[in-house]
Amino acid sequence: MGMLEGMRYSTYFVHCLKTAREYESVNATLLQKGGFIYQVMAGVYGYLPLGLRVLNKIEGIVREEMDKIAYEILLPSLSPMELWEKTGRHEKIDVLFSARGGNEASRAKNGAEYVLNSTHEELTVPILQQLAPSYRDLPKAVYQIQTKFRNEPRAKSGLLRGREFRMKDLYSFHLSEEDFGEFYDRMKEVYTRTFARLGLGEDTHMALASGGDFTNDYSHEFQAVCETGEDVIYFDEKEGVYYNREVASEELQASGQALTVSEVGNIFPLGTRFAEAFGYSVQDQDGKSRPVVMGSYGIGTSRVMGVLVEKFHDERGIMWPEQVAPFAVQLVSLGNDMEVLRWAQDVYSALEKAGLEVLFDDREASPGEKMADADLLGMPWRVVVSKRTGGQIELKQRSREVLRVVDLEEAIRLMADGAG
Amino acid sequence: MGMLEGMRYSTYFVHCLKTAREYESVNATLLQKGGFIYQVMAGVYGYLPLGLRVLNKIEGIVREEMDKIAYEILLPSLSPMELWEKTGRHEKIDVLFSARGGNEASRAKNGAEYVLNSTHEELTVPILQQLAPSYRDLPKAVYQIQTKFRNEPRAKSGLLRGREFRMKDLYSFHLSEEDFGEFYDRMKEVYTRTFARLGLGEDTHMALASGGDFTNDYSHEFQAVCETGEDVIYFDEKEGVYYNREVASEELQASGQALTVSEVGNIFPLGTRFAEAFGYSVQDQDGKSRPVVMGSYGIGTSRVMGVLVEKFHDERGIMWPEQVAPFAVQLVSLGNDMEVLRWAQDVYSALEKAGLEVLFDDREASPGEKMADADLLGMPWRVVVSKRTGGQIELKQRSREVLRVVDLEEAIRLMADGAG
Repeated sequence: MGMLEGMRYSTYFVHCLKTAREYESVNATLLQKGGFIYQVMAGVYGYLPLGLRVLNKIEGIVREEMDKIAYEILLPSLSPMELWEKTGRHEKIDVLFSARGGNEASRAKNGAEYVLNSTHEELTVPILQQLAPSYRDLPKAVYQIQTKFRNEPRAKSGLLRGREFRMKDLYSFHLSEEDFGEFYDRMKEVYTRTFARLGLGEDTHMALASGGDFTNDYSHEFQAVCETGEDVIYFDEKEGVYYNREVASEELQASGQALTVSEVGNIFPLGTRFAEAFGYSVQDQDGKSRPVVMGSYGIGTSRVMGVLVEKFHDERGIMWPEQVAPFAVQLVSLGNDMEVLRWAQDVYSALEKAGLEVLFDDREASPGEKMADADLLGMPWRVVVSKRTGGQIELKQRSREVLRVVDLEEAIRLMADGAG
Repeated sequence: MGMLEGMRYSTYFVHCLKTAREYESVNATLLQKGGFIYQVMAGVYGYLPLGLRVLNKIEGIVREEMDKIAYEILLPSLSPMELWEKTGRHEKIDVLFSARGGNEASRAKNGAEYVLNSTHEELTVPILQQLAPSYRDLPKAVYQIQTKFRNEPRAKSGLLRGREFRMKDLYSFHLSEEDFGEFYDRMKEVYTRTFARLGLGEDTHMALASGGDFTNDYSHEFQAVCETGEDVIYFDEKEGVYYNREVASEELQASGQALTVSEVGNIFPLGTRFAEAFGYSVQDQDGKSRPVVMGSYGIGTSRVMGVLVEKFHDERGIMWPEQVAPFAVQLVSLGNDMEVLRWAQDVYSALEKAGLEVLFDDREASPGEKMADADLLGMPWRVVVSKRTGGQIELKQRSREVLRVVDLEEAIRLMADGAG
């Protein structure tokens, strides 16, 4: 196609910015140096091709899991202030953004001010009220993967705390607390499986946290163990339960069983508060009117991307889990010898034919620069083609130090097996 | 999975709102009656599951075509006012939205006002300036499929003119006018193929239109012939070229060769205006500094959805082109006889096994209601299972009146062939 010649580094929109400065968070630094994201302003990023591939893989896994339990919809970012006046949250949410005409001409034509949604309860309730008016229509659950806005005063943590960020939010609607409770427990399982698939599995813990304004119950946070995390949870050995520091007892805090963590998801019992604000009640089978019981369930998909980098990196760069890596393999050709380049081209074709996603670093750059870039970008496998290994290739996993010199077929077999 | 039992009408989030009123545009009326979209406020819609399936299919086709010529990125909706001050468009665009703290507490924490982007030249130029600083990096083209915001004073045309809408926007960057011209011509072909695949092919015409502020050249609009369209184009037989009414000569307008059309895409030569505003110049091979030449290329993906409904409907409802239909088949069981229901279930499984996407109307509703809903929703094929056809089924295309009574295998063969 001329401009696009496969995923070759020389033509692909990859650009490691060695000049990029150090930022306050590891994920901001590495993701910008590696050309995954571009900072438009504090807390607001664009996703470049490599970063968008990661985000799409994360959201693809989340979508597959949510499709098993809810229907996907896509809600707007703008909404009328009146919807928020019903719950009072137009005043209460102190990071709420609003949108209005951006200059005098625009405001002269339409002077209204709208909410730029930070969450979507105020939209889902009236929609369900219209589309699920009868007890026969419940339970129902809808979700979306969409952009959210928060007027964060300090947004200095890369993808961890943004003014604009990506989120999966799910809302469930039930006839009774009992039915809600069953669904809520199923969501705990769905979340546990989702985080496992995202590569956050073994040391992501469900912790009890404050239910906020909505309920006297606890909410549940999913907290990934992470050295640079912003949160602390305590394990109660007797109960076998984790507590967020905010709700942990003084005894538990004193016991010192603390883990530094980063939040990747949360689930909230909302009770009947929203249904009551909107007058969403249904008649049950006995003709009795009941306000609908709700829950909400969030996963910050762009935040997950940031947390993965915080967790999986070393001093040289990122180490993406296989499931969300932009490519499985970074293929590196060393030297400008035409024979090596042609051979590298054959290896590239063979890897792609074997179903592996390959980023081919075919630049005229020094071996040191190419190896450093491969470590920075963090694909799970590195394949090096050069003169010095005879007809064989060098195979290395990003997360291990072992370097193998093997035949191409053997390399493909090892990568397909995911074997170290 | 309990709550989700395949794509059955009775449990799926489908709800034909017979009570929905008539709106000013056909697409707003039919898409809301059919439960494809939900109006949150004038010009702002949510996509319900059926509508999101259509939008995803449209955007999937657009993505496949754009991937052949550009790299996908995802840019934010918020940007700092300073970027727009460089081009002066913060004052000039009279439908620009801005975002700021939505209440006093929020504004007290961060009082800044940001642009809510209606287009993304002001973001792509500085990104390319950083990532493609050398002539060796050019040409480059990037695109995104993303949400756009415009403070439209009147937004009464359903998905045709929104305050918030979905759009594919592509930006190309070139060393010379010649290189730009070649790319621009290739984009004409890409667009022609894209609209053909979207079902808008044969009577979508490329028309010359004003280049706007950017250039003395024409821009090019892609105009779908549509009775309810908002635009008029004239065919110049001598030149073999269509002109938008705005730029057509008086003689041509008098000749009466007018077509009523609806715009589905446009491509713009931008010259060096944006590069100059941002100081984006590269040194060419001879060491001479040249401002970068740009083009921009838009397709309103949600608008395409609206135009398809405007074009393809009758008095009973929508007639989706096969490529973008939410499901290929609406399967309807008539009567509450258990034998018929079991048989319909078998037909459902067989159709899905044959690779057809099926919406199964398994409700306890009258035949009249079910047939009316199938016509309203507009899947390309309707399969009816009832007692009166013996062991056979009724097969009908939405766009034709012919009704066939055939064996299941024959029905599958006919649908796979797309044969009328």
